[in-house]
Amino acid sequence: MKTCTFVTGNPNKVIEVEGPVIVEDSALEFNAMNKLPGPYIKQFLELLGNDGLNKLLHSYSDKTAEAVCTFAFTTGPSIDPITFQGRLEGQIVSARGPPVFGWEPIFEHEGETLAEMAHEKKNGLSHRYQALLKFQEWLAAQELDI
Amino acid sequence: MKTCTFVTGNPNKVIEVEGPVIVEDSALEFNAMNKLPGPYIKQFLELLGNDGLNKLLHSYSDKTAEAVCTFAFTTGPSIDPITFQGRLEGQIVSARGPPVFGWEPIFEHEGETLAEMAHEKKNGLSHRYQALLKFQEWLAAQELDI
Repeated sequence: MKTCTFVTGNPNKVIEVEGPVIVEDSALEFNAMNKLPGPYIKQFLELLGNDGLNKLLHSYSDKTAEAVCTFAFTTGPSIDPITFQGRLEGQIVSARGPPVFGWEPIFEHEGETLAEMAHEKKNGLSHRYQALLKFQEWLAAQELDI
Repeated sequence: MKTCTFVTGNPNKVIEVEGPVIVEDSALEFNAMNKLPGPYIKQFLELLGNDGLNKLLHSYSDKTAEAVCTFAFTTGPSIDPITFQGRLEGQIVSARGPPVFGWEPIFEHEGETLAEMAHEKKNGLSHRYQALLKFQEWLAAQELDI
């Protein structure tokens, strides 16, 4: 079995890899804002904080949002990647719960923010879980020499 | 004199160019939002329109903004580019003037939106003019074989 390199944020690292690569990114789509901030959520959170993200929706009655996680996988250089996307519906609320992971305190799903949710429960329904599930199902159906 | 290729939006085109390259991009920084949308302004305008850009600032009393234009120039591959940035201070207002160029109807500078301003006046003070002026001054001081 060859090595499969997992890269989260360094494009130079990806260039060095000769074999299979997995990349992952998360987005947060506000429905009232035509899915913005979307992939820019990381910068928006850094610059505005969770209060500022709430303020973006101040003028809109629709506070619904979707958390999106996308994995992309390729078996090697010059092979088009295949993507696996998971989505979780919710709404943007004032922060509740421990402020450990980014925007999790302001994303509410069925009455609980992701920050308030028990880890086991969150890990069994999150956008990342949904994406990994698709990835896992696809891998199980392949016969890959990696 | 060699050819100098002017590219505005196609990264594949840039890769093909073996000689000198100039690139240009504009940003719109809302001071209340820690300079966002910044370089993402094109996507924000497309998805939200000028009304939506105003709504982003609904929760803030500070409506001031800066229009930013950046030119980058390199004499060839593997040569670090040099950048020239022009800035124009203003504030975000409800749209006024012909809706011809993007967010120009909502960017007001000294009482006039860029859309309302006479072209000659605008071209003599805009962020793009300021950036080109710096570029011109720098070029005049060089002895480039391009």
